[in-house]
Amino acid sequence: MKISCSKQSLMNGINIVSKAVSAKSTMPNLQCILIESSLSEIRLIANDIELGIETIIDGNIIEAGRIALDAKRFSDMIRKLPDSEILIETNANCETVIRCEKIKFDISGTSGDDFNYLPEVEKNKSFTLSQFSLREVIHQTIFSISNQENTKIMTGELFEINGDELKVVSLDGHRISIRKVQLKESYDGIKVIVPGKTLNEISKIINGGVDDEIRIYVTDKHILFEFEQTKIVSRLLEGEFYKIDQMLSNDYETKFTINKKEFLDCIDRSSLFISESDKKPIILNIENSEIHLNIISATGSSMNETIEIKKEGKDLRIGFNPKFLMDALRVIDDEEVNIYMVNAKSPCFIRNEDNSYIYLILPVSIVA
Amino acid sequence: MKISCSKQSLMNGINIVSKAVSAKSTMPNLQCILIESSLSEIRLIANDIELGIETIIDGNIIEAGRIALDAKRFSDMIRKLPDSEILIETNANCETVIRCEKIKFDISGTSGDDFNYLPEVEKNKSFTLSQFSLREVIHQTIFSISNQENTKIMTGELFEINGDELKVVSLDGHRISIRKVQLKESYDGIKVIVPGKTLNEISKIINGGVDDEIRIYVTDKHILFEFEQTKIVSRLLEGEFYKIDQMLSNDYETKFTINKKEFLDCIDRSSLFISESDKKPIILNIENSEIHLNIISATGSSMNETIEIKKEGKDLRIGFNPKFLMDALRVIDDEEVNIYMVNAKSPCFIRNEDNSYIYLILPVSIVA
Repeated sequence: MKISCSKQSLMNGINIVSKAVSAKSTMPNLQCILIESSLSEIRLIANDIELGIETIIDGNIIEAGRIALDAKRFSDMIRKLPDSEILIETNANCETVIRCEKIKFDISGTSGDDFNYLPEVEKNKSFTLSQFSLREVIHQTIFSISNQENTKIMTGELFEINGDELKVVSLDGHRISIRKVQLKESYDGIKVIVPGKTLNEISKIINGGVDDEIRIYVTDKHILFEFEQTKIVSRLLEGEFYKIDQMLSNDYETKFTINKKEFLDCIDRSSLFISESDKKPIILNIENSEIHLNIISATGSSMNETIEIKKEGKDLRIGFNPKFLMDALRVIDDEEVNIYMVNAKSPCFIRNEDNSYIYLILPVSIVA
Repeated sequence: MKISCSKQSLMNGINIVSKAVSAKSTMPNLQCILIESSLSEIRLIANDIELGIETIIDGNIIEAGRIALDAKRFSDMIRKLPDSEILIETNANCETVIRCEKIKFDISGTSGDDFNYLPEVEKNKSFTLSQFSLREVIHQTIFSISNQENTKIMTGELFEINGDELKVVSLDGHRISIRKVQLKESYDGIKVIVPGKTLNEISKIINGGVDDEIRIYVTDKHILFEFEQTKIVSRLLEGEFYKIDQMLSNDYETKFTINKKEFLDCIDRSSLFISESDKKPIILNIENSEIHLNIISATGSSMNETIEIKKEGKDLRIGFNPKFLMDALRVIDDEEVNIYMVNAKSPCFIRNEDNSYIYLILPVSIVA
């Protein structure tokens, strides 16, 4: 193989496919990037079996061929080269020479004969949304997936489409995050559970705006994301997602509207009083047109703060893990949020009028 | 004690004195900040015995007194408060209330009765330089102190003044860094060894410019830095510094002038080929008007690069630990540097015409 390309184009491609390189593996191919050049295209591929990425880079093909190179070493080398044209040449023994200006690297690769290419994904079912929307909806829900491998389904997110509405759901046993996205077209019968790791990596790769589309294909086993010169294939999580509709309710005894930033800053301060060993709840005392927040640490120090609210319904005293409230409030863009509660033992809901976001959080029992 | 001050003024003071808070200690006072208020001044003090810092903050004194508070907790609390007026009030039991807008923290402190105040430092010998110069000279030499506690003297830096010239020296057994600073006035008989840790912390605190002065007092045991509202006292390292003059020489067999950025970038690339377990040298082959750089990793991959130079004297093949070359080159501001060598076993010198900087680096023996 003999190819040349700009440093920028190569580095950009490496950064994309590196997200599918396995950090630690006994199989060398999972830690490699495959460079494959046909007569018309230069492709970079990486695949850690769960997640596979391939991307086409611009460049000149002098001789077709392929080589698998250690991803970390290759990436470090290219990053440290000047912003200039790079020539990559391999011989039959997989010895690889990388040249740039007066610099010459000699490294050895492998043939790539047993490299894991991306699986073929049937293109029957698909939908389209903007890169911006996908990145946002991941960011707004990913924090409440579980990292417990024994509840595998909870380590992923539900992507469900009915008509022109995409619903994304994550939950971890203490809380549920739901976001709805309006699509431009209608689709039907799409309901898949995408691994959280895949979504995390994708949100790092897609940096396009509201006008840059991403096309998503699903089968029973796989999901394929296609945009620009890049294809990302991930396995899906198998099984039935939790029936969340029966956990949701519009009934409430107490509703209040609060300035989001004031509320978030206050809870953030209260987190100073929590130690890993002793997770104290923050206590919300909702009284008339004020909320009194209070937390007492294991060592006896404490914080008290009062915030004005607009309230409907009963007064209430209720405790929460401050982190769960903060996680939800941080991804809400509204200046004011509405919070709905029933009693000190029932879940609270942070949601907007049209239910385009719903954050359910279970309270923590407090000593009366 | 009862005082009030702006968040900004308090936070600024905390950030300064925190540099003298001990990270880990069995003596609680070493992990505290003492707030001491006379009728005229509010002072913050921290002292880990090696290094002590005190600073005066602006504020209103309602009642004089003092309190010692856990530095980390106090600092975290103040940081998370809104940018507003803060009231701190203590009672006879050292219970402390911190108020800001509608926020109230209750924490407990200690009386500070057995707090370690800064030692008195006699003000007989002193000199003055700009905060900018001090920060620069530390940055330009601190990388070559030793972190080996068994060669204690090497963990500090020599500060020596003869006439109007301050000379700062650090060395670690493989290299020596020397910087000279022109002072505005003449002083005599100043020669002290300042702990590297002290210099590191000071360079983080002083952020003034060329017109902001810092006054430095020395005794046999201590060094005192005074600037603006802040005093920093450090113990000195005791003992005789190495006689470095006999290690310096102006003789050379090979001299070359090289573009600093090209040289540094090249060596930086070569560092990819070094692993912790097997430190390979970078080999410089100086031939005519070029330098050929070459490094071969333990696994057989290699890098070659050629840079044009202006050379006087003999050709030479010599090996170095790339890190030592990089450390020196990174702190030199000149576009071109002059490098002087004798043979493959003698130290090389990177220095400018007037010797305001001299970096001596020992070569590494290479297999012929």
